[in-house]
Amino acid sequence: MDRFEYRDGRLWCEETPAATLAERFGTPLYVYSQDTLLTHYDRVQAAFAELDPLICYSIKCCQNIHLLRLLAQRGSGFDVVSGGELHRARLAGAEPSRIVFAGVGKTDQELTEALQAAVGWLNVESESEMEQLSRIAEALDLQPRAALRVNPDVDPKTHVYTTTGKRETKFGVDLERAAAVFQRYGLRAGQNMRGRVRLTGLHLHIGSPVNDPQPYAESIGRALELIRTLRGSGFMIDTLDVGGGFGAFYVGGEAPAASEYARVIVPLLKDQSLRVILEPGRSIAANAGILLTRVLHTKSSGARRFVIVDASMNELIRPALYDAYHFIWPAEAAGCSPVSRGVQQPHAGLTPSDVVGPICESGDFLAKARPLPGLRRGDLLAVFTAGAYAMTMASQYNSRPRAAEVLVAGAEARLVRRRETYDDLVRAELEPGAEAGA
Amino acid sequence: MDRFEYRDGRLWCEETPAATLAERFGTPLYVYSQDTLLTHYDRVQAAFAELDPLICYSIKCCQNIHLLRLLAQRGSGFDVVSGGELHRARLAGAEPSRIVFAGVGKTDQELTEALQAAVGWLNVESESEMEQLSRIAEALDLQPRAALRVNPDVDPKTHVYTTTGKRETKFGVDLERAAAVFQRYGLRAGQNMRGRVRLTGLHLHIGSPVNDPQPYAESIGRALELIRTLRGSGFMIDTLDVGGGFGAFYVGGEAPAASEYARVIVPLLKDQSLRVILEPGRSIAANAGILLTRVLHTKSSGARRFVIVDASMNELIRPALYDAYHFIWPAEAAGCSPVSRGVQQPHAGLTPSDVVGPICESGDFLAKARPLPGLRRGDLLAVFTAGAYAMTMASQYNSRPRAAEVLVAGAEARLVRRRETYDDLVRAELEPGAEAGA
Repeated sequence: MDRFEYRDGRLWCEETPAATLAERFGTPLYVYSQDTLLTHYDRVQAAFAELDPLICYSIKCCQNIHLLRLLAQRGSGFDVVSGGELHRARLAGAEPSRIVFAGVGKTDQELTEALQAAVGWLNVESESEMEQLSRIAEALDLQPRAALRVNPDVDPKTHVYTTTGKRETKFGVDLERAAAVFQRYGLRAGQNMRGRVRLTGLHLHIGSPVNDPQPYAESIGRALELIRTLRGSGFMIDTLDVGGGFGAFYVGGEAPAASEYARVIVPLLKDQSLRVILEPGRSIAANAGILLTRVLHTKSSGARRFVIVDASMNELIRPALYDAYHFIWPAEAAGCSPVSRGVQQPHAGLTPSDVVGPICESGDFLAKARPLPGLRRGDLLAVFTAGAYAMTMASQYNSRPRAAEVLVAGAEARLVRRRETYDDLVRAELEPGAEAGA
Repeated sequence: MDRFEYRDGRLWCEETPAATLAERFGTPLYVYSQDTLLTHYDRVQAAFAELDPLICYSIKCCQNIHLLRLLAQRGSGFDVVSGGELHRARLAGAEPSRIVFAGVGKTDQELTEALQAAVGWLNVESESEMEQLSRIAEALDLQPRAALRVNPDVDPKTHVYTTTGKRETKFGVDLERAAAVFQRYGLRAGQNMRGRVRLTGLHLHIGSPVNDPQPYAESIGRALELIRTLRGSGFMIDTLDVGGGFGAFYVGGEAPAASEYARVIVPLLKDQSLRVILEPGRSIAANAGILLTRVLHTKSSGARRFVIVDASMNELIRPALYDAYHFIWPAEAAGCSPVSRGVQQPHAGLTPSDVVGPICESGDFLAKARPLPGLRRGDLLAVFTAGAYAMTMASQYNSRPRAAEVLVAGAEARLVRRRETYDDLVRAELEPGAEAGA
């Protein structure tokens, strides 16, 4: 699952005690385990090896350049969804041809940057975007490769906010429209490609997390049917990007292993003459991170115990936004090490507790009615499975500087994002500068 | 209501066309009306003049230093809830004695900064915080003034995430505990004050927005009862901070005028020998701002029309987080100017539309099934009542630089926060620097 483990009541990240990191770097603090990150990457790579896929790690879930660099060195490509993410991928030393640029609302500037960087694929989400991309490609006299995102209309049974492959979402085009898009923009063998977008791929992404391989089988099945039809009409189709969404371990045990997804997906794709792209994110990064936070106060109000900590919805908005569950436990838990990442723990004297942050609203909580041991001001808590969709969604609400990030490799730890300062909060206001936008 | 008005189908901010601002500063763009901001401040000031209250504008709702400076010059004090907000108030030229420092989880560093700055009041949220404050005050040999936040257990009938005065929230102490806190920390006439916190006030804040004066009457009534009891026991009570939460106009007409709140509140407080503090935020800033955004694409999926714009949940998370309603309409609406800020508009040919952003999740929407006129790529939309809890909650999710902010006064507009750049996104990662936290 990950390298955040209790030994004799003490939480370790690999060979480094969590408490030492909090002492050294302050709190709130994001801590990443290098070994966990790379192990999860390796597992996806090994599970799908038979397809020799291009694995494009999804930057949106955990974007720190120092982590991206490790993945690039391991051979990973990248799934980017903005000019900012492309900038990060390039700073991390990514090979542009191994980058997929996706996203439902790319600006002209972003498409220009992507084409000039010669990214491997543009994932196109609408006919309107096909027009936009064609116009920019023609102006630059470039022939970028593109994949059309199609909506397989499969329900991944996840949170409505992260369900992305049903008909009624903003993403992609419906299956029946896809053929019309290829009629207009597709390529047939022997055609003059000059100044044209090479629309030769399909892209799927049904949501995240999808803790069941079956929706992938369904959506890939529908995509293959479409590919047969398109090829039958003479169109060149050489790429299928099956997207991401593989699950992670929040409670433990709920996510299929990479090999289980592969067991369903690989047989479907292995003899299809398709370049396969995978976009895993959460399954690689989520378990590779925790959030460390200190107890500021405890108090009771009516029948409730409140544990007020120095991390907030600014650092981790998933509980407030998605009603997400994150396991939380003291980092120094002598006598009551947790036996799982579940709510129920076999210890006496646990008190149902709301773990809340300093932000001035009731939506600022990390857990509600969670049974926790006795806690005092200064105690250190760990919020687990905080490597994905955590720091990337951070805000400075209530003018709070964002947390620092630390990367641990064995007994070594290094700061990979410094804690923000008050100056960082106001820099863009004190020197508004020239009028032109970025 | 505000100075964002349609004239002959064209949206103006005071004497400046919105389209001109978008052209000049780019999109997404926050636009503030100076006159609207100051008019709403003046109304609160006039409505409550009989009490001669200290009005502490609540920085958390709209924090741009240039706007704070205008309010400071108008005589406003400030409600701050973090060291970062205190930093902003001071940069804006605020008089420290007119600052109230509130918040449920202040760090030692923040309290030290507040005491050294000699802020007017510390609002204390728990017995544990009273201990913390006393310890720091003693170490600094200072006698800060403090108010105890009490939980009047009144339901303000607003979103559960912004309900803050009920028993089961994390804020304040219950009424029955308050007396015990004063027994331990309160001051009686003639006592030696040396090195002690001057706990002589009470603080209330029941939630936001509270579109009804009645919950204020109830909570103030309960506070006055407590004050009588405390004074009867010999404690000095000289201050009542009644908090904020006055409503704003999202649909139009739903919020009571400042004078209506005052009609209920002023008679209760006028002969109580209390220094009254008010903390309005939303009622001053919400209608003073709009968010301008351009249409990137339109498309249909199944029966829905999607309007994909260049603003997102990063700029405005209220629809996703609170299910909040914001009126949205084209800035150039020849022939179909809106007649209100409500959903229904008396124009033919409107199409139910999901207005969504470029972020890669379905939670990224600004409006759902909203009847809107025909729209094309490049069209400019205005999202109204976006002056409060909008830019202050912004994130850089999907590595998107945050929007610029512009302040309009009549026919003049100036950039008050520049658009962020890709460099801003990664600065703290490229130079993580020394290990010590901020």
